[in-house]
Amino acid sequence: MPAVTNRGLENVVVAESKKSKVEGLEGRLSYSGFPIEDLAGHATFEEVIWLLWEGELPTRGELAIITSALAAEREIPDAVHGVLRALPADTHPMTALRTGVSALGAFDPDAELAPDDEAARRRALLRIVARIPTITAVFERVRKDKSPIPPRDDLGHSANMLFMLNGTEAGPAAVRALDTYLVLLADHGFNASTFSARVTAATKSDPYSAITSAIGTLKGPLHGGANERVMEMLESIGSVDAAEAWVLDKIEKKERIMGIGHRVYKTTDPRAAILRRMSEAQAEESGDRLYHDIALAVADTAVDFFAKNRPELMLYPNVDFYSAAVLHAAGVPSDQFTPLFAVSRVAGWTAHLLEQYADNRLIRPRAEYTGPTNRPFVSIDAR
Amino acid sequence: MPAVTNRGLENVVVAESKKSKVEGLEGRLSYSGFPIEDLAGHATFEEVIWLLWEGELPTRGELAIITSALAAEREIPDAVHGVLRALPADTHPMTALRTGVSALGAFDPDAELAPDDEAARRRALLRIVARIPTITAVFERVRKDKSPIPPRDDLGHSANMLFMLNGTEAGPAAVRALDTYLVLLADHGFNASTFSARVTAATKSDPYSAITSAIGTLKGPLHGGANERVMEMLESIGSVDAAEAWVLDKIEKKERIMGIGHRVYKTTDPRAAILRRMSEAQAEESGDRLYHDIALAVADTAVDFFAKNRPELMLYPNVDFYSAAVLHAAGVPSDQFTPLFAVSRVAGWTAHLLEQYADNRLIRPRAEYTGPTNRPFVSIDAR
Repeated sequence: MPAVTNRGLENVVVAESKKSKVEGLEGRLSYSGFPIEDLAGHATFEEVIWLLWEGELPTRGELAIITSALAAEREIPDAVHGVLRALPADTHPMTALRTGVSALGAFDPDAELAPDDEAARRRALLRIVARIPTITAVFERVRKDKSPIPPRDDLGHSANMLFMLNGTEAGPAAVRALDTYLVLLADHGFNASTFSARVTAATKSDPYSAITSAIGTLKGPLHGGANERVMEMLESIGSVDAAEAWVLDKIEKKERIMGIGHRVYKTTDPRAAILRRMSEAQAEESGDRLYHDIALAVADTAVDFFAKNRPELMLYPNVDFYSAAVLHAAGVPSDQFTPLFAVSRVAGWTAHLLEQYADNRLIRPRAEYTGPTNRPFVSIDAR
Repeated sequence: MPAVTNRGLENVVVAESKKSKVEGLEGRLSYSGFPIEDLAGHATFEEVIWLLWEGELPTRGELAIITSALAAEREIPDAVHGVLRALPADTHPMTALRTGVSALGAFDPDAELAPDDEAARRRALLRIVARIPTITAVFERVRKDKSPIPPRDDLGHSANMLFMLNGTEAGPAAVRALDTYLVLLADHGFNASTFSARVTAATKSDPYSAITSAIGTLKGPLHGGANERVMEMLESIGSVDAAEAWVLDKIEKKERIMGIGHRVYKTTDPRAAILRRMSEAQAEESGDRLYHDIALAVADTAVDFFAKNRPELMLYPNVDFYSAAVLHAAGVPSDQFTPLFAVSRVAGWTAHLLEQYADNRLIRPRAEYTGPTNRPFVSIDAR
């Protein structure tokens, strides 16, 4: 047993993977060899799902196959609607999503077959990708006492998601913004939620167990939950003029600034750079610049301060930082930001599960026991 | 980045822990310094919960505190009954438990506070320990079209569990057998489900997310799901006379024999030795020796074969192997074996979560990317 404890598993390589490559020092991200900058805005989310699953960009025929397969699987059982309605209206949407996906597993005849049967596995994983948007949208509607909007099978993934949320067809700019967001967040190496999905699947548990683990892990503010916290931060700062003093006060108190810094990126997160430009375009188009401008002021103050005073920390805005302004501008309620992250990342989770199940090994590390040893048992009357 | 990929994280030390010490080569297990042999049969499950949480065996006064605190928290909300009733009767009980625990999180006002507030965290974790038996028993009743039996607050943890399952008070021998089983399986270092709970909590996600991950991870047949598969194996062998040939045929075909071998133990699993004696006592008392004797024949054939022919594999029956015969003799349906494992292991999961939250670090390893690199993007019409 090695003498050194690695509490965060930093730099420990757990698997080989052909899904995404993260180059933290260079600020580069690619999916199956394609740089994220070339995919964002040029490939749809459905193309990226195919790419992550199959390792190749789809032909037109293949894209038609996955597009219609996803569209055909969007409906969720009435009983799962019932489960979502049983939850209090103030339930966190990630708790609702976690519960809804777990319940879905009870209705999928392929769930229990999936660990040992590749065809069943692919059917189950495709259903999960197709239905996470539906669960998210159904809970958003029912918690606000609105009727759920049934999914449409004639719309793409992003357009249907917006239709189920709002009940009206979104314009092409909104669809394109959401679709680009989904492309950007679809996979990211062995992030904590992907890792937790693989740990769960590695006992040969079913895919619904694995994705439920991933959702619960994404929920935390040190991972996907950060985008919601960034929005709360921007709202509490309230104005561009207040941003600089607010940031410097946080740094003075040694408190974390949500959305600044990343375990892997030690330079600009390439997704953050693209989202910053998207946020700028949304601010231009709508004329509503408030949160975009607060975000810029926070980011620039923090980056300047750390570059001058603590360059060794290498702290830069991460993907969650600009996600907040982009999703807010798209009209998404802030507590639904993390479910939207899940709508995207499930592409990567499922791609990684295909790898894990195909060549499985139980993931079971060790703890170093540091408590007392060899204690004599004392019966309760003698304690 | 190290050159070597460790796919199973074997022998990688992720944390220091004061909960349990597993000595795989020596076949020893202790909780907070007390050998499992001294606890089994001498300390109740409530005493062991206290021990795992607090690091000391409770005094009579402390035992009264935790006993009454657990008893007071057994009821689950009507809406969670509704969630369990919404699942099809043939839902795997671990899927029902995973969904029920996830849903419970929506009703606990301490869930969202728990990552940052120790008092809220302890309240939420205690509720989870108290309510996992209730969810298990409610689903067992409703899937068989029986009315759920409300929990009793005048019974201990094991006696109440049996009361909720059967609607009648169990005799002292049955209560003692279940309680000893719960003590034996309560914690086991960084097993996969405990690890997954800590990975989820390490993003500062809530305790219901973490325990939901643990349940999904335990479900797999390479972990807690093995006890159910052992029972299926004993049933399919069917007679003592058929056991030897069945085992040798499996070995010949290089197929896994469920319940034989363990990632950590390379000699007799100390829990298996105790469970084997419990199974023997149950067989004596009831006169029904069938599955006990088949289990002995399978174990002895396998141990003899491997000792003579493949001693380097160090394969011995593990805790799941004799759990099956013990739980079967106690009248538990085989697909409820893994939920009963969860009723026990939640003591360890929650103890580990107290450690994780108290001194947290994001658990995020790396993957080595082995796919293609620097591929030029090709628009869809040119593919």
